[in-house]
Amino acid sequence: MKKIGVILGAALSLVLLAGCAKLDSATSTVKNAAKSSTSSGYQVTGKAEDSEYQGVVEDGKYLTSKARGVGISQNSDNLLNLKSFESGLTQLSKTKYSTSKYVFREGQLLSSATVEDWLGRKSKSNPNGLNPVNNGQTDADKRNPIYVQQIEEQDYMKEVDGKLQLAGITVGIGMNRKDYYQKEQYGATYTTDISKEKMIAEGQQAAAKVLERLRKTSGVSADTPIIIAMFQQASDDSLVGGSFYQYTYVTSGATINDWTSLDYRSYVFPSTSVSSVPNDNDETSFESFKKQVQNFFPNLAGVTAQAEYKGKALQGMNVNITTQFYSLTEITSFTQYLAQAAKTYLPSGIPIDITVKGTDGTVQSFLARKANATNFYTHVFGSY
Amino acid sequence: MKKIGVILGAALSLVLLAGCAKLDSATSTVKNAAKSSTSSGYQVTGKAEDSEYQGVVEDGKYLTSKARGVGISQNSDNLLNLKSFESGLTQLSKTKYSTSKYVFREGQLLSSATVEDWLGRKSKSNPNGLNPVNNGQTDADKRNPIYVQQIEEQDYMKEVDGKLQLAGITVGIGMNRKDYYQKEQYGATYTTDISKEKMIAEGQQAAAKVLERLRKTSGVSADTPIIIAMFQQASDDSLVGGSFYQYTYVTSGATINDWTSLDYRSYVFPSTSVSSVPNDNDETSFESFKKQVQNFFPNLAGVTAQAEYKGKALQGMNVNITTQFYSLTEITSFTQYLAQAAKTYLPSGIPIDITVKGTDGTVQSFLARKANATNFYTHVFGSY
Repeated sequence: MKKIGVILGAALSLVLLAGCAKLDSATSTVKNAAKSSTSSGYQVTGKAEDSEYQGVVEDGKYLTSKARGVGISQNSDNLLNLKSFESGLTQLSKTKYSTSKYVFREGQLLSSATVEDWLGRKSKSNPNGLNPVNNGQTDADKRNPIYVQQIEEQDYMKEVDGKLQLAGITVGIGMNRKDYYQKEQYGATYTTDISKEKMIAEGQQAAAKVLERLRKTSGVSADTPIIIAMFQQASDDSLVGGSFYQYTYVTSGATINDWTSLDYRSYVFPSTSVSSVPNDNDETSFESFKKQVQNFFPNLAGVTAQAEYKGKALQGMNVNITTQFYSLTEITSFTQYLAQAAKTYLPSGIPIDITVKGTDGTVQSFLARKANATNFYTHVFGSY
Repeated sequence: MKKIGVILGAALSLVLLAGCAKLDSATSTVKNAAKSSTSSGYQVTGKAEDSEYQGVVEDGKYLTSKARGVGISQNSDNLLNLKSFESGLTQLSKTKYSTSKYVFREGQLLSSATVEDWLGRKSKSNPNGLNPVNNGQTDADKRNPIYVQQIEEQDYMKEVDGKLQLAGITVGIGMNRKDYYQKEQYGATYTTDISKEKMIAEGQQAAAKVLERLRKTSGVSADTPIIIAMFQQASDDSLVGGSFYQYTYVTSGATINDWTSLDYRSYVFPSTSVSSVPNDNDETSFESFKKQVQNFFPNLAGVTAQAEYKGKALQGMNVNITTQFYSLTEITSFTQYLAQAAKTYLPSGIPIDITVKGTDGTVQSFLARKANATNFYTHVFGSY
């Protein structure tokens, strides 16, 4: 196997002189073989961790998506959906495209215009719309809702003859369980509920069309592997993002033969009467932690968390703590205390992030522990 | 030497049952010797790093300062002064009170009322005021300015017979080079400038009084070591905090025999015509880094930094980067890129923090490197 050249975008001038040069092996597992003899060369971001993809850089600039920004407008009412969507897409891609062999490229096949057309309703002027025609109804149960809410493409590249070539595609399709709409401009917002069965059926139909169209796209060959992952959008008032419920991995051809189910879901701690987490033990752990933390200062701290579950198994937790601090020494002591309390009370064996904010919303300190680690990394944000 | 019991505040219930028990040796160098035979016991925060002090916890609660919050009101116009002040006090204390033998306690000797009296002007009703009497003048050059702007006490404890005893005190005194005042309530703000010589002279007089009064304070013995550290407040419009310019270390008695000069100062990058950093090489490094970073995305990134110097030697840097992101993958790629670019372009051998924010001010990722490290720790703030 040819190894892939590692070039810092930051070192473009060097690169132009020396062709494809390896500047930093310590942080990179993708090594250079295309010595300075090749004049083509390409650049990647480098990577800070082996578990992350390097990203494609062109002429010292990051190669942004051809549909850049479309995701934000698609998720403008709940940006948490976008983070969950993109994070999940990358995680899923890692199961098929190894971070040591593949380089990540922001989607270059589908343009903003294409994605926007696909997300629109089917009509005479938009024959490619994946959503149903407007039937003129405005009643929640009679109108045709928007099923397909967002689409994002990710490209995965491999080196062939000193150049990066497309070696895998991942497309995420975000599906609505609730479609929000107005009967008149600036009017009240109404909701059409979509059943899970309907969402899945509509999603599979949309995925079939997306696969077919992708195969016909210039640059995509008949045997470029394509992952299509189906995401259920969280509602606009959700404090966590949505989650992926199934995916298909098509190594060649334009037909989807099977779907693999995914059982991920995000929850909020503390749980409420309408939303309880799948595992009572985790809730007990979190409540103990919260109680200890809230007891620490005379002024009460707000303690909440986002968590991801696979079935009943906790996968990770982001804890948010907000309290009023009166000095840097209080922040430092609180952070040290949290490192101990989190270790004692929060579940082990999963990645945990803890972000500590002052009452003005400024991040004051931060703790993180990886799944396989014992102690928390701590950092207090200082100032000179 | 008796070793000190380590107890997590978080595990109070255990402590009450078992007396003084060691729960976690991995994160602690202060060890337990006072076995379960002693019924007194005390609690500390535990510590995440050996270079930090543990803090005193009482009944599961952090023991906050008796003058809690006074620092914030003293620095309400530039809170950067407060962070610089407290951070510097702790750093200076470490040179005399080792983090492995001493435990940090928020000041318990001086109350809010005492500190506020001392910071006031001397008058019939406030004979202890460290600032001069009001002479009735309102002209900037004729009035008596406020020289002493803030005072903070830190206590350093050692174990004696299973209990924590006061073993060292650090007092910081913040002095003005500019005194801001109003001639009438809600009126315009005027400024009295204070020369460096005058600030030093007034500071030393105030320090002498503070030392004398501390020695007479209940709980302080004739031979409790006392550090008094003098801090020059930064002006209200400064983008960095002030800095310590001298200190004295009085091991016993109520007389200050000598002062040790400190040559620390904080600067902002990029430097401007009115404020240039002491070392041109650092400026060149920063500008190269900035240029690379700004080239990375099509949308321009804001890149600034705070830095601390000792004379002409850079001691540390906090870099702030703000840019608009359109996806989580952009944030991840940008962060990886920064880890490489910072390693290539920014000065080595000093601690560097880099905080990356979106245009809405939300922290999106964070990188840090300790003085002796080669690579940056990176963290992207995710969401479930």
